[in-house]
Amino acid sequence: MKATIITIGDEILIGQIVDTNSVSIAKKLNAIGITISEKLSIGDTREAIVSTIDRALKATDVLVITGGLGPTKDDITKHTLAQIFNSELVYNEAEGEHVKSLLARRGIEFTDLNRGQAMLPKCCTVLHNAHGTAPGMWFERDGKVIVSLPGVPFEMEHLMDDEVIPRLKAHFELKAIVHRTLITRGIPESILAARIAEWEDALPSHLHLAYLPAPNVVRLRLSAYDVEGAATEEEITAQFDTLRSIIGDNIVGYEGSSVEQQIHEILTARGEKLAVAESCTGGTIAAKFTAMAGASAYFMAGVVSYSNEAKHDILGVSWDSLNAYGAVSEQVAREMAEGVRRVSKADYAIATTGIAGPGGGSKEKPVGTVWMAVATPTKTIAIMRNSGTDRSQIISRASAYTIEMLYNELKNL
Amino acid sequence: MKATIITIGDEILIGQIVDTNSVSIAKKLNAIGITISEKLSIGDTREAIVSTIDRALKATDVLVITGGLGPTKDDITKHTLAQIFNSELVYNEAEGEHVKSLLARRGIEFTDLNRGQAMLPKCCTVLHNAHGTAPGMWFERDGKVIVSLPGVPFEMEHLMDDEVIPRLKAHFELKAIVHRTLITRGIPESILAARIAEWEDALPSHLHLAYLPAPNVVRLRLSAYDVEGAATEEEITAQFDTLRSIIGDNIVGYEGSSVEQQIHEILTARGEKLAVAESCTGGTIAAKFTAMAGASAYFMAGVVSYSNEAKHDILGVSWDSLNAYGAVSEQVAREMAEGVRRVSKADYAIATTGIAGPGGGSKEKPVGTVWMAVATPTKTIAIMRNSGTDRSQIISRASAYTIEMLYNELKNL
Repeated sequence: MKATIITIGDEILIGQIVDTNSVSIAKKLNAIGITISEKLSIGDTREAIVSTIDRALKATDVLVITGGLGPTKDDITKHTLAQIFNSELVYNEAEGEHVKSLLARRGIEFTDLNRGQAMLPKCCTVLHNAHGTAPGMWFERDGKVIVSLPGVPFEMEHLMDDEVIPRLKAHFELKAIVHRTLITRGIPESILAARIAEWEDALPSHLHLAYLPAPNVVRLRLSAYDVEGAATEEEITAQFDTLRSIIGDNIVGYEGSSVEQQIHEILTARGEKLAVAESCTGGTIAAKFTAMAGASAYFMAGVVSYSNEAKHDILGVSWDSLNAYGAVSEQVAREMAEGVRRVSKADYAIATTGIAGPGGGSKEKPVGTVWMAVATPTKTIAIMRNSGTDRSQIISRASAYTIEMLYNELKNL
Repeated sequence: MKATIITIGDEILIGQIVDTNSVSIAKKLNAIGITISEKLSIGDTREAIVSTIDRALKATDVLVITGGLGPTKDDITKHTLAQIFNSELVYNEAEGEHVKSLLARRGIEFTDLNRGQAMLPKCCTVLHNAHGTAPGMWFERDGKVIVSLPGVPFEMEHLMDDEVIPRLKAHFELKAIVHRTLITRGIPESILAARIAEWEDALPSHLHLAYLPAPNVVRLRLSAYDVEGAATEEEITAQFDTLRSIIGDNIVGYEGSSVEQQIHEILTARGEKLAVAESCTGGTIAAKFTAMAGASAYFMAGVVSYSNEAKHDILGVSWDSLNAYGAVSEQVAREMAEGVRRVSKADYAIATTGIAGPGGGSKEKPVGTVWMAVATPTKTIAIMRNSGTDRSQIISRASAYTIEMLYNELKNL
């Protein structure tokens, strides 16, 4: 079963927003066995919408469309769909009342434009949008399904989960899609490919291997389409088990669990506590941990000690070290980690101090220089790395490296 | 001048990655006057690549393709392009030497797979990729241009800036595209549309208005394609100036400068300092400020006081308040803001304390309850808001509201 995802909106074509709707829809469709043949973004023009839907309907069985359902003149998706399906717009009493009460709760007047949002093509099944003013629409033609959803991510998510996915499962007989991704570390892509060539060549034809390289990491994904789910999952697990005998030392584990998630699980299970002192990473590491539900069980405190005063006053870094070695130094990184561990009464602490740029670099300490430290109950270790010249990359790489340092220490204890 | 952007890779179609490449490419093409007609994502199959390029070449003058240029078997873009252009692959000595030296610097062996990366279609102009092992390719056919770039964002960015954009400007006579977006706050979309209907109806036909709604904010974008840049910019500014006379109180300013950027500028100009104490937002606010180059001029410290101990030990929040009112309370929010202002010697401080969920809620303080405080040299204010039930939404909304509270205070001083 194949689908096309169409996102409508000039804001996508001019790069004003990042389209995450299609990512979410793709995952949800994959999870029930529907393969995405193509994702498209088009502008708010009648011609583009008509020709794209026409073409997509020839190639695939399911079309999921988002965007263009707002109350204003630039939103034309609904009118264009009514035209395509040759169906008049009629006022839907229930949806009208819903919009009215939703606006009343927010203290907003119900205008003609809002009334227009409850005008819906007669031929469609209305998908009730409990969280917004634009209902979704479900159309059928020759056994194929066309779904139109609002572009507001939160509303789209609910409509997919509550309305679209259950209806698709009822409408089609679906087989499974299985993806599983193994993370390897420390082997460059080309070397890895040579080392596992024999294993790769022996894969059965229904298992598709993909290489997904990133700095220091290559993810290997095996995918199978239109299969029996449970049996294929076992088969893929067995294939990856074979791979462990070839490159076992370089395998980190399956995707789905980031390094911070693994630390989250270890600390939660052990009842141990964590604290973070950040200079150049500026709160990014703390935000990664606290984004996970349940972090309060182990995350005691983070200190973004951006100024030297904060390093000294809050963390107890000595003025001697700051003056003798500078804020970006092994000594200060160590004292930051030890200091935040002490003031927050944590078992483990990590610290970063570096030059995120673009200013502040020197010949000895160029932009990108970052000292990272981990303090445990028995020792403190520190490492320096240079993470390039781009501020956001320096922050994200230094965060990732420091979290990995902590993980390596936790694993060995 | 119209372009199609094609991103190739199964990882996009299954929702394993968010495609940001096409966002960046769209912006860069728009900036030199090239309009994007369509963005497409397709899988790593020969048929999809051939048919998509064929169709896109009929509709547009420029194709920018990313992805599928890696050294492994799942990457087939280059071979498919060679086939489409009926051109044999030949070894490019200069690119081969570049790949060799790049790998040597990283201590990686040069394999046959890497040699393959320097095998390039004879008919293309090679675009040198200084930052990676996969060169870009520039093809021409009937005056149209087809560009193939690696999917690694960093490498793609450099190739676009250094090679593709200058060549496109030389190849085509381009007119300008102008987008300008005004941010309004506090008027719902439907009310706003009614209030500015007369202005909207009087817009000249070459200026296109789009409404981009978000919680409490509607952005209004005016776009013009294939115009004289400077004159149209003036025209759009004049139109927005007229709008100020209608909804002036609700206009925040032009997009491009977020609230935190405006605070960044105000504090930098005034030489005043900021500190942040975060509980439920967990470092997100600190990370927003420190992501901006130059933040060290005013950002003294952030404290992620997740535990009660940290609130007391680091920020000096009293045990009396914590016990009497609980960590999520007006009193604690105030003491956090005042505490971090004091320990970091800042002029201004903001604080958040709330229940991000999914656990920890109660009838009196349901998940989503967040107290936010701003401490200034003369006073402390605190506000409570409920930000829904989704952890990541609670964190991002509470961060945004708190930053806005600070902005409102700074504006009035």
